[in-house]
Amino acid sequence: MRMECKEDFLSDRKKIQVVDATLRDGGLVNNFYFTDTFVRDLYHMNLAAGTDYMEFGYKASQKLFDRSKFGKWKFCRDEDIYDIVGENHTNLKIAVMADVGRCDYQEDLRKKSESPINLVRVATYIDTIPEAIQMIEDAANKGYETTCNLMAISKCQESDIKNAMEMLVKSPVDILYIVDSFGSLYPKQIRSMVQLYQEIADKYGKKIGIHAHNNQQCGFANTIEAFSAGASYLDATVSGLGRGAGNCSMEGLLGYLVDTKYQLSPILKFIEKQILPLKKGGLVWGYDIPYLLTGLTDQHPRSAIAAIQEQNQGYQKFYRSLLG
Amino acid sequence: MRMECKEDFLSDRKKIQVVDATLRDGGLVNNFYFTDTFVRDLYHMNLAAGTDYMEFGYKASQKLFDRSKFGKWKFCRDEDIYDIVGENHTNLKIAVMADVGRCDYQEDLRKKSESPINLVRVATYIDTIPEAIQMIEDAANKGYETTCNLMAISKCQESDIKNAMEMLVKSPVDILYIVDSFGSLYPKQIRSMVQLYQEIADKYGKKIGIHAHNNQQCGFANTIEAFSAGASYLDATVSGLGRGAGNCSMEGLLGYLVDTKYQLSPILKFIEKQILPLKKGGLVWGYDIPYLLTGLTDQHPRSAIAAIQEQNQGYQKFYRSLLG
Repeated sequence: MRMECKEDFLSDRKKIQVVDATLRDGGLVNNFYFTDTFVRDLYHMNLAAGTDYMEFGYKASQKLFDRSKFGKWKFCRDEDIYDIVGENHTNLKIAVMADVGRCDYQEDLRKKSESPINLVRVATYIDTIPEAIQMIEDAANKGYETTCNLMAISKCQESDIKNAMEMLVKSPVDILYIVDSFGSLYPKQIRSMVQLYQEIADKYGKKIGIHAHNNQQCGFANTIEAFSAGASYLDATVSGLGRGAGNCSMEGLLGYLVDTKYQLSPILKFIEKQILPLKKGGLVWGYDIPYLLTGLTDQHPRSAIAAIQEQNQGYQKFYRSLLG
Repeated sequence: MRMECKEDFLSDRKKIQVVDATLRDGGLVNNFYFTDTFVRDLYHMNLAAGTDYMEFGYKASQKLFDRSKFGKWKFCRDEDIYDIVGENHTNLKIAVMADVGRCDYQEDLRKKSESPINLVRVATYIDTIPEAIQMIEDAANKGYETTCNLMAISKCQESDIKNAMEMLVKSPVDILYIVDSFGSLYPKQIRSMVQLYQEIADKYGKKIGIHAHNNQQCGFANTIEAFSAGASYLDATVSGLGRGAGNCSMEGLLGYLVDTKYQLSPILKFIEKQILPLKKGGLVWGYDIPYLLTGLTDQHPRSAIAAIQEQNQGYQKFYRSLLG
């Protein structure tokens, strides 16, 4: 059975790019307060597992956000990354995310040759695509690979997504990401969305990426379905660590991709050493009924996060409140 | 977005049959020791939610299994079902499962007219299909609807599955079930399997069912993909209650099917009243790393269940043991 399933990526194996977003999406759970040991172990996990990118966090504005209120990976200063990776003479590339309107990219992003960063991921909603393109151009001019992560696509009309893609493909962006921010999409919809992206992206040689959330327990399924449909940049986080219901799990994804160039054991080792203590320490993330309900109703998970923090298990009432 | 996804079942809505397997698969977690209040509430939940079948448990042999060591739903005596459902003058049909080689169907299964049961689900491995067919014939002769639940199909060769289907379609069986016992299959494989079943089943007017497990967090995704590919009998359990990683969750499935004839709120109410106390009482089921690893390696979850009971979190070592 397994070979039959895998045949479609044996030929495409070289183009798979696994992106570890543990620090960045996980930072939304603990305000980026990871220990240096956690981050170093994660870096070495990625090296041993053979993933392609490790996203360290956000390049957030130090004018808009108080550095004393967040861990360092909210800001991803080059010197902090150098502290972990040195000159990083490895095959693992370093990524950071920059949100439209929440960063000072012109000053904070140096030239590629002076930075440990390889990939700048520009996160935007559909109404700020022009600003996203300015950021992409700036980063590309400085020598970085770039992605555009179009968030909350479940809220967009297809025609608007098409228009956004038409604008983006004319920019220097390398990878166009489908971001199911609310975890509301099903595998079938993900396949349609990859096709929609592909019709425009292929003509311009752009790659497609997928960033899935697990509200309806489709984070992993949506990721491998996107891959099967033609996406090649696959985001995952160790044990799904990420806001709310979390993400496609790295152990699930590398398990699926096992017998390719990736190794699962380093992920399991990291879980034993670093993830289990996080859970034991009380950090809460992952699938739960309130996330199912915000995903189902295509809403931001913030009300579900609040319900879970308050240990409110009045699910019927919560569901009614979501339906308005 | 949602309409686009759902259009394919708007036309097929009438043929969807949701089967609540909470008691039967959940009984494998607690040896069928459910309180009568739990079972009554579950029955009323199903009535309010509009599901089509409620499976009460197994019709197990009282010669092979000691009645003092299991709750009553291991045996599903007609009188015990009558105690809960009375004459059941409702649209909800009552199902039981019978395992090849573990039941005394000739004696224990009365005529349909003398029993509260509507549907007899015959569970078999591929090498006992002839015995399964004998049971199906017996049950059909007595007036019941019947299914054949072919377990552990991930271990079978496609040609063997085809041969089994060719035999089964000539029997009086009504529904042919795909059972991913080890939770090892991915959505794409499930779609292929539905097609394989369909090519044979369609000619004989047989329906197709899906019973998925959540080892790799594909329980729900595999169920809706099977539906999309043509399966119409969809198994789910409340909060995924079931052996090991559990099943497709009823709340996920009815959420997906919302705006059809099904209601989600009664499920949420039941979770609040009956499932949360089960969890608080220490009953453990649902996705966890050891189940991911047995699913990935296509193995029975028993070693994972043992690891979790022993609170063994040495995942790397466990994975190595599975790889042999």
